[in-house]
This record gives sequence, C-alpha cells and structure tokens, in this order.
Amino acid sequence: MTTPVGQAADQSQTFGERFLARAAELGPLCVGLDPHAHILERWGLSYDLDGLKEFTDTAVAAFRDTVAVVKPQVAFYEAFGAAGFEVLQNAMAELREAGVLVIADAKRGDIGSTMAGYASAWLRPGSPLEADAVTVSPWLGVDSLAPVFGLAAAYNKGAIVLAATSNPEAPSVQLSQTQSGTTLAQAVCDRVAELNAGDKPGNVGVVVGATVEKSPVLDQVNGMILMPGVGAQGGTMADVRRICGEAARFASPNVSRAVLNEGPGVEELQAAARRFAAELQV
Amino acid sequence: MTTPVGQAADQSQTFGERFLARAAELGPLCVGLDPHAHILERWGLSYDLDGLKEFTDTAVAAFRDTVAVVKPQVAFYEAFGAAGFEVLQNAMAELREAGVLVIADAKRGDIGSTMAGYASAWLRPGSPLEADAVTVSPWLGVDSLAPVFGLAAAYNKGAIVLAATSNPEAPSVQLSQTQSGTTLAQAVCDRVAELNAGDKPGNVGVVVGATVEKSPVLDQVNGMILMPGVGAQGGTMADVRRICGEAARFASPNVSRAVLNEGPGVEELQAAARRFAAELQV
Repeated sequence: MTTPVGQAADQSQTFGERFLARAAELGPLCVGLDPHAHILERWGLSYDLDGLKEFTDTAVAAFRDTVAVVKPQVAFYEAFGAAGFEVLQNAMAELREAGVLVIADAKRGDIGSTMAGYASAWLRPGSPLEADAVTVSPWLGVDSLAPVFGLAAAYNKGAIVLAATSNPEAPSVQLSQTQSGTTLAQAVCDRVAELNAGDKPGNVGVVVGATVEKSPVLDQVNGMILMPGVGAQGGTMADVRRICGEAARFASPNVSRAVLNEGPGVEELQAAARRFAAELQV
Repeated sequence: MTTPVGQAADQSQTFGERFLARAAELGPLCVGLDPHAHILERWGLSYDLDGLKEFTDTAVAAFRDTVAVVKPQVAFYEAFGAAGFEVLQNAMAELREAGVLVIADAKRGDIGSTMAGYASAWLRPGSPLEADAVTVSPWLGVDSLAPVFGLAAAYNKGAIVLAATSNPEAPSVQLSQTQSGTTLAQAVCDRVAELNAGDKPGNVGVVVGATVEKSPVLDQVNGMILMPGVGAQGGTMADVRRICGEAARFASPNVSRAVLNEGPGVEELQAAARRFAAELQV
C-alpha cells in the first residue's frame, strides 16, 4: 500500500513503511530546509522574519509534491524566536497536508518529563509543531529517549536517533567504547534494532553521515537511515551503499545546500530535487 | 564588584563572575521553571496556554528578586509551539531585567551553521529568546559547540555543557572511554577547563548531577557547575561538596519540584526558595 502524492499520509502505517512507500514513488531524497543567512542572501532575501517567510513559502511550493521527505532545520527558525516557530509550524502543516514526510531536525535530548515535553511538542497529533518525525540526541543514554519512542509507537511517528555523524569532532564521542566494548554509535544502532524488531519496518530511525569513515553496522536497524552529507559535502550513492549494506533501501540521503543553491525559482528547485531524487535511487 | 539585586547584570563581567557575585548575595540556588502538567494541576491551573502563562507570571513574581539563577525548562514551553515560546521569551526578558541570571535549559547540540543558529537564538543580544546562558549537549563532539562558545566569549554569556547527568541511563554513554582512555564526562570537563583557562572565572560551565556516583574531577573547570538532583531527587550539600571539591564555590544546586510544590502562593514560593538558598550556601 503506497501513499498517493498530494494526499495526507496513512497513519496506520509505521513511519518506516510510510517512508518506503513514498520513496518508491518519488525517490528516497530528503531535502533540508536550512534558511541560514547565506542562503537567504543568495536568494536575494533579507535575513529577517520577512526573508524567512519568503524562503519557507517558496520551499513549500517547490517540495510539496516533489520529494519524499523534507527536513526543516529547527535552529534557523528558533533564531527568530516565537515568530520563527510560527513560520515553521505553518510550513510543517502545509507540507504534511500535501503528504510530505516532515522530519523536524531538532536534535532534542533530555530525561523524564522533560523528554516527554519534547515528544509532545513534535509528535503529538494536534500539537502546533506536529511533525512526522523528530531527530533526537542520545547523550543522556538512548533509553532516556523512551518518551519519544513511546509516542512514536503510539501514533506511528518517527524518532530518529543521532548515531554516527560526519562532522570531524564526532568520532571523539561517537567512537568511544561502551562498557560492553562496542562503539557508542554501534550501541545506538543496536538499541534501535531492538526497538524496531518485528516484521514491519519500525518507527525508530538513525542518523548516519554519508561521509563517515568508520560506520556502524546497520543491517538490523529496520527503520529509516537518514544520511546527511550527500551533495555539497561529498557523499555519493556508492557511500550510501557501502555504509548501509543490506539496509540500503532504508536510506534517505539528505541534500540541503546543493538543492537550495538552485533557488529561488520554484521550477529550478524542483528540477534540482528531482535530479537528486533520481540519482540517489537505491 | 557585585551585581545589585533588582538591577540588570553588568555585561562586562564574565558569566562565571556574574554568577559568583549574585550567589554571594542571594545564595547559589538555581530554581527550575518546569511547568509540566503535574505542577500546573497541583497549582489548580489548566494544562493549556492560559495555565502556562499564569504559572510563569507567578514564578517570575516569586523569583525575580529572590534567587541567583532561574532555569526555564524549554521543553515545557516548546510543547505549546510558537505561543509557548512567546510566554518563555517574555518571562526571560522580565527576569533578566530584574537582574536574575537566566539559564535556558534547552540542551541544544548541532554542528556548523546550525549550531550557530542555536547560539544566536539563545545568546545573541537582542534576540527574542535571549538568555544569560544556555545548556548544550556534546554528542556531536564538544568542539562542535564552538559557535556557542564563541558567542559566549563575545558577549560574556554562559554556555553550560552536559557532562555527567544523574539519570540511570547516563553512565551507558557518559562513562564510555574516549580514545585517550578517560571517560567522556571527564573529557567534557577537561575541555571546558581549557576554554575557561585564565585568571577570571570563565563563561563556560558544566552540568553535573548532584546524585552521580562516579563524578568527573572538577577542580580545574573554573566556571559554573550546574547541579540538578538536589531536593526531591535526594542530592544534598554533602554531595555537592564531595563532587565539586575545591570548585564548590562554582556550584549552583538546582531545585525544581521541591520549590514549585510550595506554590502557587508567591510568598510560599519565595520562602521555599530562600530556605533552599540558605541551606545550599557553600
């Protein structure tokens, strides 16, 4: 069962199933919405709330029926405070209504009732900031993220855990050895595999950079593998296959700059997104 | 030079100096603003935007001239979307104007221009969400937080890095061994010590739970040590001294529930805060 383009997603499917269905139609590409000063300037926009709104409206128009997944980078909206969040929540609602899977790239991480607060903010149906999935950070222990896994399970939302990122400072933390002798990145992936165990693709995912040298084994993850670092940062489909192995069908390569640099024309943005979506087809 | 109560803080002092000055007058207590459903219910408020506003107004009235540090838990405002952030930013502005040091407990962590977005959101003078300090998470590598350290240095703001938290899931990550054989928690504290090196207390701080069993050595940190877990969670001043050693003067024990449970009366909240502030005096 696939989710027709232009129609709100079927909530009876897991997040993993919804991703596979939409990727089968449009390719697995995730386009990042990263309205930082440099991109707004490039598009001839002012770096202020008006510029943010215009960037976002244009991006929504371009990507609402073009790509499988859109990933707003929450920091760039947060920088404008409450007014920025209003722009973000309107954009997420519009994209979701069109059937796009929206991943709020928030990298939230906390414990107990505080983590439940973040889970509610991003995954609770009817919440102003409701997304289809949210990225989360496991510094406080993967299982401190239980409230977000719980809400993901309850509503078939996605919880995407940072495992192995591609920035140069990442190995200093993520390749550290746990008490059981594995790397932290691998421990995250192994725990996600447990959470996703079952016949159906699960609601939990991982973030693994497409340029990481020492990748965790991803065969058992059974959920979305969000892979930043493709395009401007140098990652290729060969990297995606090398890193994901058997799990490559779960990979959603994320391109931000290399698509956004083609704006502000809607047609140019769509053409770039379609080109990447086809190139990155598994 | 101390910062008089009821007067906006002197921005020529480092965040560490401002904390020591204000703690000398009011005690080192940090009161957490944690408007979760249970607290609102206890105060006879509805768990909605109106309840959130009334909780926050009451807390601002109670703590604006009573305690050294107030720490809003961002998740509970984020749960209400843009409207919740509006409540938060108004409260932070009012508290800061009264001279309170406001730590936005946001636990943000990302890389590159995205981290710069978070730094700008919370630490840039004039930003809608401007705080005195923000908590940050080092899962992507301590040095991925460079933009927040940079803005902290530029404006004498605080950047408080999660080092060793007191939740049961924390050791699985934070006691992992780095490539140089130390624990991750210790590696965070050592890097903060380098960033704060100098004669004056620095702008960077660490979060270390008052109930951690295996604490990193904090002697060289030379900046705020934010210590949750005191009060309802069982941490005591003896724990603070055991954990901080020579650095105990930098400790800001954080109490949330045990103070908030005394509400909604402003006088009762103030009495509870003053009692803890005196008890927790180093």
